Amino acid sequence: MARRLALLLGLAAVVAGWGTQSLRRPAARVGRVSRRVARVAMDGKYSPAAVNEIPISSSVSDNRPKKVLVLGGDGFCGWPTSLHLSDKGHEVIIVDNLSRRNIDTELGCSSLTPIATPQVRVDTWNKMTGKEIRFINLDLAADYDLFLQLLKQEKPDSIVHFAEQRAAPYSMKSSKHKRYTINNNVGATHNVLAAVVESGLDIHLVHLGTMGVYGYGNSGGEIPEGYIDVVLPGGREKRILHPAYPGSIYHTTKCLDALLFQFYVQNDQLRVTDLHQGIVWGTNTPQTARDERLVNRFDYDGDYGTVLNRFLMQGALGIPLTVYGTGGQTRALIHITDTSKCIELAINNPPKAGSPVEILNQVAETARVRDLAQLVSQKTGTPLQFVTNPRNEAAENPLQVSNQKFKLLGLDPILLDSAEGLLEEVKSIADKYKDRCDVSAVVSKSYWNKARAAAAGQSAAVDLGVLAQPK
Amino acid sequence: MARRLALLLGLAAVVAGWGTQSLRRPAARVGRVSRRVARVAMDGKYSPAAVNEIPISSSVSDNRPKKVLVLGGDGFCGWPTSLHLSDKGHEVIIVDNLSRRNIDTELGCSSLTPIATPQVRVDTWNKMTGKEIRFINLDLAADYDLFLQLLKQEKPDSIVHFAEQRAAPYSMKSSKHKRYTINNNVGATHNVLAAVVESGLDIHLVHLGTMGVYGYGNSGGEIPEGYIDVVLPGGREKRILHPAYPGSIYHTTKCLDALLFQFYVQNDQLRVTDLHQGIVWGTNTPQTARDERLVNRFDYDGDYGTVLNRFLMQGALGIPLTVYGTGGQTRALIHITDTSKCIELAINNPPKAGSPVEILNQVAETARVRDLAQLVSQKTGTPLQFVTNPRNEAAENPLQVSNQKFKLLGLDPILLDSAEGLLEEVKSIADKYKDRCDVSAVVSKSYWNKARAAAAGQSAAVDLGVLAQPK
Repeated sequence: MARRLALLLGLAAVVAGWGTQSLRRPAARVGRVSRRVARVAMDGKYSPAAVNEIPISSSVSDNRPKKVLVLGGDGFCGWPTSLHLSDKGHEVIIVDNLSRRNIDTELGCSSLTPIATPQVRVDTWNKMTGKEIRFINLDLAADYDLFLQLLKQEKPDSIVHFAEQRAAPYSMKSSKHKRYTINNNVGATHNVLAAVVESGLDIHLVHLGTMGVYGYGNSGGEIPEGYIDVVLPGGREKRILHPAYPGSIYHTTKCLDALLFQFYVQNDQLRVTDLHQGIVWGTNTPQTARDERLVNRFDYDGDYGTVLNRFLMQGALGIPLTVYGTGGQTRALIHITDTSKCIELAINNPPKAGSPVEILNQVAETARVRDLAQLVSQKTGTPLQFVTNPRNEAAENPLQVSNQKFKLLGLDPILLDSAEGLLEEVKSIADKYKDRCDVSAVVSKSYWNKARAAAAGQSAAVDLGVLAQPK
Repeated sequence: MARRLALLLGLAAVVAGWGTQSLRRPAARVGRVSRRVARVAMDGKYSPAAVNEIPISSSVSDNRPKKVLVLGGDGFCGWPTSLHLSDKGHEVIIVDNLSRRNIDTELGCSSLTPIATPQVRVDTWNKMTGKEIRFINLDLAADYDLFLQLLKQEKPDSIVHFAEQRAAPYSMKSSKHKRYTINNNVGATHNVLAAVVESGLDIHLVHLGTMGVYGYGNSGGEIPEGYIDVVLPGGREKRILHPAYPGSIYHTTKCLDALLFQFYVQNDQLRVTDLHQGIVWGTNTPQTARDERLVNRFDYDGDYGTVLNRFLMQGALGIPLTVYGTGGQTRALIHITDTSKCIELAINNPPKAGSPVEILNQVAETARVRDLAQLVSQKTGTPLQFVTNPRNEAAENPLQVSNQKFKLLGLDPILLDSAEGLLEEVKSIADKYKDRCDVSAVVSKSYWNKARAAAAGQSAAVDLGVLAQPK
């Protein structure tokens, strides 16, 4: 208890400089870590009124148990979501080509946690719970006819689509990786859409997008959920899809997905929900924690390790926390347990057929990267190390995000300043498995362009691509 | 001469109801056929001031002869452009996988004009002119490594990218055709971008987009060139990429391309020009007309035949001119000769490295489809036949388009009301080769969705896709 208090005091110290201010819409505002950002944006004459009016467009609450295909259901978000949905009484079929495990092989990395095979995972869950999750190995970008056959046979109510290459650094490693990410992600998303239309079934598609589609700080205030109200030349008002400002090939694929959704919804009256998710932290959920064979993956490498998890891992190992550039980048965050809860909220609240793509920001709060590093540093006694940013991005950016739709649907998100136990859990997992860690994999070797590679020094010049020549 | 006058009088009768009005920017306004539309839009409180301020962003005039790769250089636009560039002293290398010829095989159609093989075409031109066009058979979406090798070897100054499946109806025929169009078009465009970056060369990419990326009538006034000035919530002004409203899978791929260009220009400072082209009419150009072995293709079938050419073909055959729905759709048009001229203007005016994607509307004028049909009807004495629209689109739409950038670069476009000779030429080509026409191919059998197929009647129910079951 004393320890917990100390940690909370530490956190309080981190946020002490930020003061407080009255927030007109506290329910829709992101957590405390983001408040400095909120104030900056509000000083900038931003009025949230227009954004406030964006409704949960036309979703229908439907809490009946559903048959759900989880595409990419073996991955970091897909696996805990599959278990959560099964736990809540939905019938789950996982569709996954195990590409993430194959990329581990390619990169010579592996999950810090020793994840079981998909077969063992599913068997363990099914025996433990008496429920039945099925697993199908299928490549969505390649096996269109098999997927269509699966739809016709199973007639699912919902499809949850996680089946995309999801690491921005991996997508920028080389031409080969750029091309793989484009072909895999766009191919998979389009195949899913075409197959739903061809099946003739009324299936609700829930897709995992990213906050990165909005860019960081480009919308003139709080980032609304998917759509933004603008005034066109001549004074006509119009609600448009938020302009796309992707910062990597990975992010670009999510922007391309958004246009595909818009087209198919308009042309074929599909029901599509697009969830623009923040950076996910944490590893286990109440379901994956039930048995070691159900453990979720934990990525700490320079390509797939997400920022807070990577800091916690570095803290556990006692090595300096590597912060890119000034660490002034503000990012949106969400805990993995909330990811799985949000997905269930989404499938239980499908848009009506014919209404526009339903877009929600799947975000708990925002935080500056250096503040996250400070938080972990205070927790672990590990120093910060500022390194050259391999990414082509703004050194500092504010970020204020609306997440009112999920709040209205009942989400009470986990926030960092009350998540001491969860932070501790991640750290203890990092501690437990630290002997499995390859420290050399922690630093990112994926550079966004030649200038970024050059800035990182001679030794990095080969990292532009597998085909590039050493200088 | 008397006959020419009679035709012009006929045209005058067609446009007689439209009146005249003072246009504030006549140089930037599209031709006479579109003026009724212009007035409607201006009544709607549209002020062109903001659009007026969009500059030719930062292009640099460079009239030196260049080495140019023409991707898709065997196609309807690519072939005449290749000859025009060669004629003007540029060194041309055509890269094409002959997919358009293969699609003819698939559809059981062929160009009305008997086109020579690429080898004969190139040999004929080279012997006739003493210039050298080379031809390389390469699949851009598949043969990345070969293409990269070609770039490194040839070090072109410019790439003109026509290498995409370009028929909206074909892209909507079935899931197979949707998937082919997505994978081919997005794959090819992305491979070109990735290869330019990997080559390390400073190559100007000129891409053929479509007016269809803007949707038809959605921007609240005259459609500007690529970007639109909006006011964000809170009053902040911002120039954004015009929102994308694609009406088919084909059009969607051009919107996806636009986002890829935006990303690569921002991340890698590539120089990219995107040309949003109207519907191309005509067949021969001064270059293709020099020898029968150089003749350009003429598509009249329901998938690839473009609207004005199709009417002229139907007129030559004396069969009714099939107008979709009310024919109230307004579309942008350009003659094939102007297409090739615009491409040369584009490659001679590349944007500076680091400046945004340069976007130009490659359009001469706009016209309503039923007015085009009336024009051909008066010319040929053929009646109109209104048929159920297979497309999912607005029955009637206004369309006002800015084309000031090409005007400022010196284009004096061919307009329908002074193009009597060119209309006559197309009709005479249709006459000359009418024995090669398969009349049954003229009607479109590609339906946008189930509702459109059903509206077209029982006999059309199989046309949703190659895999669909007859009812």
